[in-house]
Amino acid sequence: MGATYKNNLELTIFGESHGKAIGITIGNLPSGIQIDLDEVARDMKRRAPGQNKMSTARKEADQVEILSGLQDGITTGAPLTGVIYNSDQHSKDYSLLKTNMRPGHSDYPAYIKYKGFNDVRGGGHFSGRITAPIVFAGNIAKQILKQKGIQVGAHILSIGKIKDEKFPVDVNDDMLLKLSEKQYPTIKEGVFEKMEEAILKAKENLDSVGGKVECVALHVPAGIGEPFFDSLESHLSSLMFSIPAVKSVSFGDGENIDEMLGSEANDCYYYDEAGHVKTSTNHNGGITGGITNGMPVSCTVTFKPTPSIAKKQKTINIETKENVELEIKGRHDPCIVQRAVVVVEAMMALGILDMMGE
Amino acid sequence: MGATYKNNLELTIFGESHGKAIGITIGNLPSGIQIDLDEVARDMKRRAPGQNKMSTARKEADQVEILSGLQDGITTGAPLTGVIYNSDQHSKDYSLLKTNMRPGHSDYPAYIKYKGFNDVRGGGHFSGRITAPIVFAGNIAKQILKQKGIQVGAHILSIGKIKDEKFPVDVNDDMLLKLSEKQYPTIKEGVFEKMEEAILKAKENLDSVGGKVECVALHVPAGIGEPFFDSLESHLSSLMFSIPAVKSVSFGDGENIDEMLGSEANDCYYYDEAGHVKTSTNHNGGITGGITNGMPVSCTVTFKPTPSIAKKQKTINIETKENVELEIKGRHDPCIVQRAVVVVEAMMALGILDMMGE
Amino acid sequence: MGATYKNNLELTIFGESHGKAIGITIGNLPSGIQIDLDEVARDMKRRAPGQNKMSTARKEADQVEILSGLQDGITTGAPLTGVIYNSDQHSKDYSLLKTNMRPGHSDYPAYIKYKGFNDVRGGGHFSGRITAPIVFAGNIAKQILKQKGIQVGAHILSIGKIKDEKFPVDVNDDMLLKLSEKQYPTIKEGVFEKMEEAILKAKENLDSVGGKVECVALHVPAGIGEPFFDSLESHLSSLMFSIPAVKSVSFGDGENIDEMLGSEANDCYYYDEAGHVKTSTNHNGGITGGITNGMPVSCTVTFKPTPSIAKKQKTINIETKENVELEIKGRHDPCIVQRAVVVVEAMMALGILDMMGE
Amino acid sequence: MGATYKNNLELTIFGESHGKAIGITIGNLPSGIQIDLDEVARDMKRRAPGQNKMSTARKEADQVEILSGLQDGITTGAPLTGVIYNSDQHSKDYSLLKTNMRPGHSDYPAYIKYKGFNDVRGGGHFSGRITAPIVFAGNIAKQILKQKGIQVGAHILSIGKIKDEKFPVDVNDDMLLKLSEKQYPTIKEGVFEKMEEAILKAKENLDSVGGKVECVALHVPAGIGEPFFDSLESHLSSLMFSIPAVKSVSFGDGENIDEMLGSEANDCYYYDEAGHVKTSTNHNGGITGGITNGMPVSCTVTFKPTPSIAKKQKTINIETKENVELEIKGRHDPCIVQRAVVVVEAMMALGILDMMGE
Repeated sequence: MGATYKNNLELTIFGESHGKAIGITIGNLPSGIQIDLDEVARDMKRRAPGQNKMSTARKEADQVEILSGLQDGITTGAPLTGVIYNSDQHSKDYSLLKTNMRPGHSDYPAYIKYKGFNDVRGGGHFSGRITAPIVFAGNIAKQILKQKGIQVGAHILSIGKIKDEKFPVDVNDDMLLKLSEKQYPTIKEGVFEKMEEAILKAKENLDSVGGKVECVALHVPAGIGEPFFDSLESHLSSLMFSIPAVKSVSFGDGENIDEMLGSEANDCYYYDEAGHVKTSTNHNGGITGGITNGMPVSCTVTFKPTPSIAKKQKTINIETKENVELEIKGRHDPCIVQRAVVVVEAMMALGILDMMGE
Repeated sequence: MGATYKNNLELTIFGESHGKAIGITIGNLPSGIQIDLDEVARDMKRRAPGQNKMSTARKEADQVEILSGLQDGITTGAPLTGVIYNSDQHSKDYSLLKTNMRPGHSDYPAYIKYKGFNDVRGGGHFSGRITAPIVFAGNIAKQILKQKGIQVGAHILSIGKIKDEKFPVDVNDDMLLKLSEKQYPTIKEGVFEKMEEAILKAKENLDSVGGKVECVALHVPAGIGEPFFDSLESHLSSLMFSIPAVKSVSFGDGENIDEMLGSEANDCYYYDEAGHVKTSTNHNGGITGGITNGMPVSCTVTFKPTPSIAKKQKTINIETKENVELEIKGRHDPCIVQRAVVVVEAMMALGILDMMGE
Repeated sequence: MGATYKNNLELTIFGESHGKAIGITIGNLPSGIQIDLDEVARDMKRRAPGQNKMSTARKEADQVEILSGLQDGITTGAPLTGVIYNSDQHSKDYSLLKTNMRPGHSDYPAYIKYKGFNDVRGGGHFSGRITAPIVFAGNIAKQILKQKGIQVGAHILSIGKIKDEKFPVDVNDDMLLKLSEKQYPTIKEGVFEKMEEAILKAKENLDSVGGKVECVALHVPAGIGEPFFDSLESHLSSLMFSIPAVKSVSFGDGENIDEMLGSEANDCYYYDEAGHVKTSTNHNGGITGGITNGMPVSCTVTFKPTPSIAKKQKTINIETKENVELEIKGRHDPCIVQRAVVVVEAMMALGILDMMGE
Repeated sequence: MGATYKNNLELTIFGESHGKAIGITIGNLPSGIQIDLDEVARDMKRRAPGQNKMSTARKEADQVEILSGLQDGITTGAPLTGVIYNSDQHSKDYSLLKTNMRPGHSDYPAYIKYKGFNDVRGGGHFSGRITAPIVFAGNIAKQILKQKGIQVGAHILSIGKIKDEKFPVDVNDDMLLKLSEKQYPTIKEGVFEKMEEAILKAKENLDSVGGKVECVALHVPAGIGEPFFDSLESHLSSLMFSIPAVKSVSFGDGENIDEMLGSEANDCYYYDEAGHVKTSTNHNGGITGGITNGMPVSCTVTFKPTPSIAKKQKTINIETKENVELEIKGRHDPCIVQRAVVVVEAMMALGILDMMGE
């Protein structure tokens, strides 16, 4: 399996859900950046499992040990490697996973591609757990971006059919700060309670729900990106689609922009009182022609419902070549969207930092 | 500007809308493939402008001259370069485009990035015209895939609020063949007439409409793609977001999969009578864990309404630093979705061929 | 065949010796650079064949037609494509080349790799003629570097056993200027006459000779390159080994530095009178730890003798599977080193520009 | 610092000489390969320091802990990460290294590039110690190649002015096996004793010596590589120049091939009795036109004398901006060539495996 992104930044992920450790190496970071490890820990906690009845009962401290690239808390410029040693591994029996392919999971394609040699315990390298190193790397990226004045934040746009509202055109740092302090960040008050209800109802029914996360990066200068294969949208979507369970990526009002007229969808420019170029709307999510225009870069990511459900499902046994029924046991999230918010922020931060060059 | 995609295949685009020529070089093609130039011409025509009142009046034969890589109609393995010499260039005055930034276009970000030196005539390298070489390359890719038994096809899923139905789970070669023969490919009968109405109404109002294209690749073997940064979804989305005006990319039921329950969204495996692995639904669009599962690979792409509209719009004059009004003159498409169908097919074919290796 | 280099710069080569055209697309050039086309023509002429009895009698004007990326002589930032249409193609019989593999050439490996479909006329895409687009691109790079104060120049270090002296530690712009004005650039006076003698003697004997080219880039700032896989030496050598017939690449006194003691090979730093950091010797060729130190970047490249010789040679007939004898007819260079000087300069300029970022 | 090579294989190095750990992640390995960890240990020992008076007294077990990608000793296809925890770290004072730039080292360019934030203890990420993970990865590559019948081996071609002979054209597996069992592999008997003498004499004089390593890969099939930017020579040289202290890379008789005539340098093809294509000589090192021809792939790499010498040297103090004198203390190798043999083998194996695709 390839696990390396190499553009200006270099990101290399490794590890399996139930192996010794998971981690990431980040190459081409600037030197001389003071890293606040408390901030890292804060983001790690936002993604960590076991925090309430809506997520898996697996408890992982998800503490990152930094093996290289940092000296006295300051980046040296050398590749920065962070490792999370796995602790809470249930020694359960995974033999069924070897043969009975879970619907909606990577089991079957991985079986074909890796000829049955892939580690299936907990999903192996395909586990959502592999997003923990992404959050670590993303937080480093956020801290570097912050020094350039760029702020990244996200909220839950929807869970199942329960919807939050989208970021307004004048989304600002304060709004992002407040969202980042909420355990379940939504813009509308009271909406997460309904989302929670939907999640718990699904759990009760041995089922699961999906949702959408909307993420913005504020104060990104105009001029980042390229028209063709290295468009900012190309790079950001490529990163977002590396997050397990993501099935759609759009920018601005992307998914619904086809229902607008041109006169509605076009974001009209104007000079504000300070003489800065702004647009009166931001349907294009801060990117036109693949390049930033100085408005908030906005990206919406759709997560499918967690494929691991306790409900009985039909599937195949790849060894006996028979159609069988499957009941998945174990600790699973009825919804991963609330934990994925910080993962989406991480990919946004890494993508923006990457495309800005060093 | 970067204009090169390099993975297994190598794609390098060049040219400006009103320059001498536009073209593409394709590296790492297999040798020994007989190329049917009539098939190339057929796809070029599907994209070409000037065919009816719904597209720009600009007439371009869009004939591809092959400069290298082909001998006696057979690929030599050397880089294949196709060039389209520009012919129908109106020698109109483009000075306004230099200063008055068209909303929804690349004008302003390009002005910032290229410091005002970018060619603005007809959009320069940002023009939708640059998709013509993509169609050429895509047709070559389709011909190679066909020899591997893989078929690529697409239809207009929506124009404005008028919607076609999605591909059924058992979409087959015949259905694709029939779609490819229609000037305006839709699955439902009679739906394009309503779409046409919407387009012409927008045109009449000096406005424009957008839409969605759904594309599938049939008979792609299971096992293509990687879990992380080289997931098939990452690569395909990265290619799709290189098409001008694309603002959303999703796989399977991606955009709406968040409203399903896990038990609905999971595609259950079964052995069919011939002993082949199938899924009874295809909500995941043939890809789980970033890797193909042998079902049709399905991708939906959303185009924003054409940003060039004749309606008066507010914008800025970048030289005088004033807020101004703008009326865009010239030949523009009130809708580009019907012409973009073959462009989406091209990117799908290139992406699949690329990810399969040689 | 892959023919694309993608790092900060993007280079894509295409064309065959006897096809319609050869050319190159350069992506990620800065915008706003005035290009002097006379300078381009001057470098093209330095490489062009048919100038005297030491090179092939094939006459090619090698005039570059620019298809994109330039407006009013100024780079637009869009990919710049230069094409050279082939003119002087002898319509000779190439059927023997299809079966009788020329020793020292790419014929046999290409036959295996491309299954016999590769264009063999004049070497096809493997021809030394494909270096003409490199010289074009290299000259553009030189012009951009010049605006940053960086000067690139080279000389013939040896032809066969006849040797010029190496660049002194204080090589300067004047010295490079004078070398570039010589048809056969050597540092020592009178040495090319002996080289010419060696070339003509080889020609008379139906044989060929090789040689070395030493190239420097002056005033490259310290700090360009990376320790590991993106070391400046890695990138430059990778580019140099793309030039046909190159079999060795070294930096500074690379090939002989193993015979020095550490105390001799170490370049000792000092502050000069102006307070600039210098080294008293330059055995490391301006690069330590993969990164420039501010001294002249120096690279020596070894060319093997032209493999095309008129002498009878033993080889195989790949169709009949027999051992045969071969006499190569046609117009060939008894030595290509003097024509390759400008090609080496081109690769050095492209490599330095690439590694500096935009 | 960038530390990632991404082509078909993915290699990402991390760690500093005196940090917590050094390591490497290898992506895109085939699944299902049984890895013999004793073989890994054997190669690690060939590079390890502290084995005799010719190398640094630093003692490191260099035991590799595998964090991911291996299950029951078999590759899973997931990224394979090996880590070596640093143990024997002298807590000496490195403050002088922060200011007094060691000649021939990366100190000064790194100071400029990383603004003084790079870890200077023991050379940090520039340390020769970082080649230990390369040896680990290289051994994995060797084991995979072995299963394809490909054998990689090397010998010391020279130390200072003492020279071994080059591999003969009929170098075979037996010869490589015997070399790999020698602590100091040379082809000629008795030559290492003279080399040892030269090393110890240099050490006595507080000086150091360099040398050359010649490496071959046997039974590589014809057809590996590309003519231009992805020539096998380009990739192999790019990897070799990542090894600290390498200043020249050549293929076949590369460094001296310029002194041959074409009729001497051309390797003439013939069918051997078994009907296999061979060449009667191998001056081109198994590669013509950038592509393998089926003969042994041969590469010679030149190492400069260890720049760390105890002799007093002139240099600069970068803080006080003064010219100063420097005496380097600590444990240093008077020659690293004998330890580098296995590093060169590693890069050769990685490069060949990479270019063969999976």
